Amino acid sequence: MSAKASSNVKIVDCTIRDGGLVNNWDFSVEFVQHLYSSLNEAGVEYMEIGYKNSPKLLKGADSAGPWRFLDDEFLRKVIPQKLNTKLSALVDIGRVDADDVLPREESLLDLIRVACYIQDVDKALELVQLFHDRGYETTLNIMALSNVMEHQLLEAFEQINDSVVDVVYIVDSYGSLLPNDFRLLVEKFKKHLPNKRLGVHTHNNMQLAFANTLISAEYGVELLDASVYGMGRAAGNCPTELLVANLKNSRYSLRPVLDMIEKHMIPLREKEEWGYIIPYMITGMLDEHPRSAMALRNTEDKDKSVEFYDKLTTPEVSFGG
Amino acid sequence: MSAKASSNVKIVDCTIRDGGLVNNWDFSVEFVQHLYSSLNEAGVEYMEIGYKNSPKLLKGADSAGPWRFLDDEFLRKVIPQKLNTKLSALVDIGRVDADDVLPREESLLDLIRVACYIQDVDKALELVQLFHDRGYETTLNIMALSNVMEHQLLEAFEQINDSVVDVVYIVDSYGSLLPNDFRLLVEKFKKHLPNKRLGVHTHNNMQLAFANTLISAEYGVELLDASVYGMGRAAGNCPTELLVANLKNSRYSLRPVLDMIEKHMIPLREKEEWGYIIPYMITGMLDEHPRSAMALRNTEDKDKSVEFYDKLTTPEVSFGG
Repeated sequence: MSAKASSNVKIVDCTIRDGGLVNNWDFSVEFVQHLYSSLNEAGVEYMEIGYKNSPKLLKGADSAGPWRFLDDEFLRKVIPQKLNTKLSALVDIGRVDADDVLPREESLLDLIRVACYIQDVDKALELVQLFHDRGYETTLNIMALSNVMEHQLLEAFEQINDSVVDVVYIVDSYGSLLPNDFRLLVEKFKKHLPNKRLGVHTHNNMQLAFANTLISAEYGVELLDASVYGMGRAAGNCPTELLVANLKNSRYSLRPVLDMIEKHMIPLREKEEWGYIIPYMITGMLDEHPRSAMALRNTEDKDKSVEFYDKLTTPEVSFGG
Repeated sequence: MSAKASSNVKIVDCTIRDGGLVNNWDFSVEFVQHLYSSLNEAGVEYMEIGYKNSPKLLKGADSAGPWRFLDDEFLRKVIPQKLNTKLSALVDIGRVDADDVLPREESLLDLIRVACYIQDVDKALELVQLFHDRGYETTLNIMALSNVMEHQLLEAFEQINDSVVDVVYIVDSYGSLLPNDFRLLVEKFKKHLPNKRLGVHTHNNMQLAFANTLISAEYGVELLDASVYGMGRAAGNCPTELLVANLKNSRYSLRPVLDMIEKHMIPLREKEEWGYIIPYMITGMLDEHPRSAMALRNTEDKDKSVEFYDKLTTPEVSFGG
């Protein structure tokens, strides 16, 4: 049974960028090349090939793979021939050096996305303006929306309406939102941002990443973030294969995505961990950042979820009772 | 963010019954006892403790665990003290011996559910009448609804309206239905069966079991099937822990379910396989029984999903081109 969605829907595959948070961006060039040709063959519109933050502005940068600090010259070696799938990079507020950003006609990148928390929307929109002026498509990705107060959001909407940004993202950073929450958020964003296109980025803490993405598409969201086999930080993201298989759109083809999964993702999943895992479910239901669960998963007690749940829900150790 | 749902919503945990399809009902008495006390403590209303088919009417019955052919005397030893959680058993058409069914006051069972395909609704309703007359609550579980034609369904609705059955189930046997499909099905069932309560049983082939269950609850479905850690045939079911964690209902408590997962389900999942696995995703999207994928998972080629997909989608080997 295929899903209703606008014919303008586009998939943004984030396997390398968000998946890099799992393996410290330790993807081989061959892996990334195979992913690019697979996504292109599958008809996926965008591939987010990494972060374009500056290593000068980040601690611990040395150990990370090259996809964490995309360099245009390196990128040209990885993708000697551009295909239909456009390339995207994400930047964080305060971690990007404007001097690193070439004009679009000199870069392989098409889309630059700026991620920020609600209090930094103004700074994010300054960066958006810079990238826009250099010719890129732009998005603003407001993280942790489940923790944003109404008046903050309304203020941000005003700033966004005055900006050049092309697409505004609803980001469920903690994987805490239910289908109804997405429906209400999409309706609110549409009402307050009538001239902006919308995107969603979901997390799979409660096995809702795909459902929330589908429902958002049905309510008019155009850019849908996903990653192959769901690879992404902690519980991971909406699986690309599920969108490709189910969106009512004959331009998508599942077979190349299955090929990528078979050749690369199944072996990778044996070494690295992501997906529906109980401690991530717990941080999701509690509407919290998964960092405590990620720390737990690195210990011998990784499956001791009762104790973990008790810790997170004991009033004495919470703020303010 | 908690989900809207009727306050009449009840969870039917199917871990032993549907999970038994994974491990040939090889659950220890201690496992089942721990599950029963956990579900009771969690506030789950029903536990389906197995099938009540007759071993005389089934091939290969000898090798299966006792939960496949529930015997009242045995049940009394397992559950010496009945708690708040009611007990349920499933029967299949043609596999149940009416002589095995004691009157309810002599049995620990409260609910008997009759599963059938659409063409056997009449036979199923005869069994329902029998169980009803012996004092049990009853449900009719119509399987494989995604493959049922409209005129068959309308005819079944007439028979159901004339029957004594308490609850009618929408069963997504192949895990092929999307949230919108569930919404439409629930609305149709409500319209045509105004005096019957409804239930849903979902499968997780496309990571939609929880979302489809939530949405059904929001549209008025009262009985929600689930299993702890999603254990069930092939891709498994809606996870009990996700319903308990998210339904807006203070009578549910997550901690005992987490305890069951930590003590029993995590070790069991290391020996037995269920869940979101690509071949099951493929049979789900193609709206097919998972048996071909289950067979594949028992071979060395278990992860060769491209070849599997090609086989299932090659016109020459399909009926009718």
